[in-house]
Amino acid sequence: MVILMREIDLSKYEIRTDLVVDLINDDFKFEKRRTYKGITISNITLDSENASLLNKEVGDYTTIYFDDITDSSNYGNLLRILSLEMRKILDKTGIKNNHSCMIIGLGNEKSTADELGVSTAKKVIVTRHIYDLTGTLEEGYRITSCLIPGVMGTTGIETSDVIASVIKQVKPDFIIVIDALASDSIDRLLKTIQITNTGINPGSGIGNNRKEISKKIFGVPVIAIGVPTVVDASTIVNDTLNYMKKLFSYNIKNKNSNTNKLIPSNKIDYLKNNNYTLSKEELSYFLGALGNLNDNEKRILIKDVLTPIGYDLIVTPKEIDFIVIKLTDLIAEAINRSIHNISTKKA
Amino acid sequence: MVILMREIDLSKYEIRTDLVVDLINDDFKFEKRRTYKGITISNITLDSENASLLNKEVGDYTTIYFDDITDSSNYGNLLRILSLEMRKILDKTGIKNNHSCMIIGLGNEKSTADELGVSTAKKVIVTRHIYDLTGTLEEGYRITSCLIPGVMGTTGIETSDVIASVIKQVKPDFIIVIDALASDSIDRLLKTIQITNTGINPGSGIGNNRKEISKKIFGVPVIAIGVPTVVDASTIVNDTLNYMKKLFSYNIKNKNSNTNKLIPSNKIDYLKNNNYTLSKEELSYFLGALGNLNDNEKRILIKDVLTPIGYDLIVTPKEIDFIVIKLTDLIAEAINRSIHNISTKKA
Amino acid sequence: MVILMREIDLSKYEIRTDLVVDLINDDFKFEKRRTYKGITISNITLDSENASLLNKEVGDYTTIYFDDITDSSNYGNLLRILSLEMRKILDKTGIKNNHSCMIIGLGNEKSTADELGVSTAKKVIVTRHIYDLTGTLEEGYRITSCLIPGVMGTTGIETSDVIASVIKQVKPDFIIVIDALASDSIDRLLKTIQITNTGINPGSGIGNNRKEISKKIFGVPVIAIGVPTVVDASTIVNDTLNYMKKLFSYNIKNKNSNTNKLIPSNKIDYLKNNNYTLSKEELSYFLGALGNLNDNEKRILIKDVLTPIGYDLIVTPKEIDFIVIKLTDLIAEAINRSIHNISTKKA
Amino acid sequence: MVILMREIDLSKYEIRTDLVVDLINDDFKFEKRRTYKGITISNITLDSENASLLNKEVGDYTTIYFDDITDSSNYGNLLRILSLEMRKILDKTGIKNNHSCMIIGLGNEKSTADELGVSTAKKVIVTRHIYDLTGTLEEGYRITSCLIPGVMGTTGIETSDVIASVIKQVKPDFIIVIDALASDSIDRLLKTIQITNTGINPGSGIGNNRKEISKKIFGVPVIAIGVPTVVDASTIVNDTLNYMKKLFSYNIKNKNSNTNKLIPSNKIDYLKNNNYTLSKEELSYFLGALGNLNDNEKRILIKDVLTPIGYDLIVTPKEIDFIVIKLTDLIAEAINRSIHNISTKKA
Repeated sequence: MVILMREIDLSKYEIRTDLVVDLINDDFKFEKRRTYKGITISNITLDSENASLLNKEVGDYTTIYFDDITDSSNYGNLLRILSLEMRKILDKTGIKNNHSCMIIGLGNEKSTADELGVSTAKKVIVTRHIYDLTGTLEEGYRITSCLIPGVMGTTGIETSDVIASVIKQVKPDFIIVIDALASDSIDRLLKTIQITNTGINPGSGIGNNRKEISKKIFGVPVIAIGVPTVVDASTIVNDTLNYMKKLFSYNIKNKNSNTNKLIPSNKIDYLKNNNYTLSKEELSYFLGALGNLNDNEKRILIKDVLTPIGYDLIVTPKEIDFIVIKLTDLIAEAINRSIHNISTKKA
Repeated sequence: MVILMREIDLSKYEIRTDLVVDLINDDFKFEKRRTYKGITISNITLDSENASLLNKEVGDYTTIYFDDITDSSNYGNLLRILSLEMRKILDKTGIKNNHSCMIIGLGNEKSTADELGVSTAKKVIVTRHIYDLTGTLEEGYRITSCLIPGVMGTTGIETSDVIASVIKQVKPDFIIVIDALASDSIDRLLKTIQITNTGINPGSGIGNNRKEISKKIFGVPVIAIGVPTVVDASTIVNDTLNYMKKLFSYNIKNKNSNTNKLIPSNKIDYLKNNNYTLSKEELSYFLGALGNLNDNEKRILIKDVLTPIGYDLIVTPKEIDFIVIKLTDLIAEAINRSIHNISTKKA
Repeated sequence: MVILMREIDLSKYEIRTDLVVDLINDDFKFEKRRTYKGITISNITLDSENASLLNKEVGDYTTIYFDDITDSSNYGNLLRILSLEMRKILDKTGIKNNHSCMIIGLGNEKSTADELGVSTAKKVIVTRHIYDLTGTLEEGYRITSCLIPGVMGTTGIETSDVIASVIKQVKPDFIIVIDALASDSIDRLLKTIQITNTGINPGSGIGNNRKEISKKIFGVPVIAIGVPTVVDASTIVNDTLNYMKKLFSYNIKNKNSNTNKLIPSNKIDYLKNNNYTLSKEELSYFLGALGNLNDNEKRILIKDVLTPIGYDLIVTPKEIDFIVIKLTDLIAEAINRSIHNISTKKA
Repeated sequence: MVILMREIDLSKYEIRTDLVVDLINDDFKFEKRRTYKGITISNITLDSENASLLNKEVGDYTTIYFDDITDSSNYGNLLRILSLEMRKILDKTGIKNNHSCMIIGLGNEKSTADELGVSTAKKVIVTRHIYDLTGTLEEGYRITSCLIPGVMGTTGIETSDVIASVIKQVKPDFIIVIDALASDSIDRLLKTIQITNTGINPGSGIGNNRKEISKKIFGVPVIAIGVPTVVDASTIVNDTLNYMKKLFSYNIKNKNSNTNKLIPSNKIDYLKNNNYTLSKEELSYFLGALGNLNDNEKRILIKDVLTPIGYDLIVTPKEIDFIVIKLTDLIAEAINRSIHNISTKKA
């Protein structure tokens, strides 16, 4: 087919996502999922077989979905759930109350899309220096330190080298690392928190030049907390083309519905109860050869189109600046509550 | 055609852009265009006939294109050109050396995509209070004040009401207003500065709830300086589909080129020397019914697809945080140089 | 006496303080004072006679003293007390539930010592635009707008002119203004909040070039909330000299105490139970002619010493940056709770 | 004498200053001093004998004094001088063009008085990652990395431990460390830059809990750049008392001058041509026993007075927020110019 110019090693084009939930479908049987006051919690434990299938690491993945973090009542519910799920992961990972913790905030504080880790780390409670000075800590507190290693572009040093050298000196019993994540889906942006005890693993995705931060590398458990903040521009094009198919299938199914004609077209919820799948011929009619490309082929095409334009464009919710502030408050407070035995805000 | 569900008043869907250059094509005869050290300057003067055609206001529009503002030598060239073009517009608008100026920075300082006006205004030189106190100013300086009215969401007051009431009090002879702009094209983002003596005019675009800031409203000339910082998500989808057609036409033309087969497909510059236009049949083959929609129909379709998803997504260059700092430095210094008779940086 | 070189108009040297509690002594009979969990509340109502004596305006002054705002339990108590006292002042001032409010944040956001008003105003809830759009507000909310007029040095416009022109447009029923205050005593810095329904009055103090913001000027009640953030350098010298006298008197009284000899001299609490007053001779012995100057004379001398050195020095607690963040959170939340009928944090 | 209550180990009360110029008097013969366009440069080289006398380290100390950094012409002169003096120190320290550099920014970025090191470090050019990636650097650039270790209160880790562990990993050939300094004199605040190749040495001063950062500790040369930003409150009291003596001596000498009587007392420049020293009797007359305390005794007394009040007060110029921005621009650019072979601003 002339639409793609040549044979391509498709594995090189696999989309990069840090979210394990991006890789499974709705009936993945190793997922436990429940919803409480509009907040959905997904618990997935990958054994070596499943991990290998998904190209992810063996371990526990908790994913929390929510809608509006700016509402104070939602915020409170979310804080309780996040703290609780954090504690569960700590327990599953074998973290004891007397284990010392190092919190690491990754990313670039000068970029709204990338500052999540740094801004969260700036809000956590540290105690290690008090213990060093006095030999004791107030009841309920754990020995905790914090590191903000910066990004290579402003330090000139590989981030994982900074982390490795400080860990060698401080010798924490476990690590919590916070970072902005990549997702391949627009509908998770700033509305999803993933917690995993597998650390941060670059996987085989494209454009992923991060080094691994994991127990394998550092010898101690690594809990990673992340939130997807942006998708790249090719993702939104691909997502839109997929949604287009759903709209077309909806339109075919409802082409004779008189009610629909009264609703403005952009108000029609074509995603609801829409199980009709377009045939190959219908796809050709609506979208031509493009309509019959599979997801990987479509992504390759979009990359081929966008790369020569010379832009490194990102897509993000308009309100990102405000939501990131709320999210870093939330995650920092949940970390404080889950690693220390305290229930009220102290900072 | 079933692809669009019904008759639509297309005028309601016209894309919103604040850039006059988005509305003209390459051979628009009222444009003077020249390039100096990689920086392109476009001067357009709209008479009432042309203004009416483009749905813009009568007046002068200067647009400056550049590539890399982070390079210090480019920055210097750009500063000189911008200062000069500012002065030309001031002259054309009849501003004299003894006219007093009020600089107004629009937008929301807490949002990277919207802070351009506010951050620029915070860097300009003000002198009005010194004149009020001493009755005189240092040689070369003009009476200048500055207002940052805030956005309605944080003040509860219509921005134009704040401006109107302060202007009534301060009575400047002319106004310079700075704001982040909307564009309908990804290739202008953060690489274009528009200066116009027509003020800020909402036009008939969609989603444009700004009130007019112009001589007609305030009785004194209004120079507006703007930079497009984001496009909405539907724009990038539409742009990508258009670029896709160019890629397909390139591929058809070059399908037997052996050299091309050695270049990775995403490195091929399909935009260069590509004059081949796809036939209706070729468009149908590649893109189906979608391929034969005109631009407006395509935009309507994309809006219909994206709106029910419920996101207000923006597309922006990854480096926006850093570039905005440079741009506000640049514009503030160009304003200082052009309204005062000073050549060196003083602040 | 040669110590002061000539006759001086002492009234010109009167120290400037915005705190009414700086002007009264412990047995001022128009003050009601009580302490709750370490937080002291002082309520003063000045009638025309007392107001004239103190060179202050007729009205209500509530002053709240506290020690450590960084402790979360103190913070909670303080928030409840401040909200309650705010409501009481609103009631005394005749503010009804349907009265519209404008909140004004004064000062310079770029200066830690002066940003209190601006940073607080950025954290309050505004509703006026929602009312304008929908004609109604959620139960419990009041029509509220917010203005940050900036400082003359960055706007070129007299701050009170900006305020006057916007008030004329928005027509609020009452005003709440927040500002950093001056005090003449180091022991109130960042530990005192004054609320008054007399607005902001420059008084006759030196160095006070603020214009009046009051009912008299704007025609509607003005509630002013302030916190002293700095004292000038001459104050700390004067305070230290006064404390020196107390230390000397303590030393004289306790010169034969054997217990005291075991305590390091800088740990002795010489302020406790120290009622002994030095005689004129003792003052001469310890401090020479300086010791017998009265407060005003001493201040004149210190100003004469410091002014030619050419510094505009301020004295402030080392932790000012952190405490100001907490204080602006606190005051913004107390304003939200007292003007709206809501009990939980919403922002 | 009853004025000080007991025998005290005076060495414990020695004032802490990081400025070597605070320790010498005007005719110190190892100082070379010159003035250019209002900027004074002092070069001091301490041999082991002098270093021991001053309780400082053997090495070179360059101190640059200036008045107004906000004036653009001063700024330019200062930048040239600072870059040149930096280069001279690098040469004296044996730094070659191919030596790799690590820049370390000390202090707490959240505190205006302490952010100088961090804010400067954020503005320097780093290149080490480019060299690592490409094996080469653009002509004139040196391999440079940057570390911002944070403060113990927010990391829980001793700052020098973070530095030591990263140095072990990165292995720079020399280090440049930037920090806010302490001074014991108000007239150097924000108007003095000290450069030394002796690193940062805590010395024997009080309240100095910093660890040493020097060649002795890290095995490679350490260039330290510092600016005094605050003095503690006791310093200004002590300075004022000393200035008071000068004013008294001036007044005695000029008590019959008729001209002086026409000048407002706070406009008299009593510091000019004032060589008269008060006698013991005159000191007793003016200042009593206080007048005859030596500097150390006076400081002890002031500390004894202020400590029980319970404040950790600092004294700083009112304009500190603005000046620190200018200073960090200046020092970062001077570092860039002196370690790389580039003359224009690139960042």
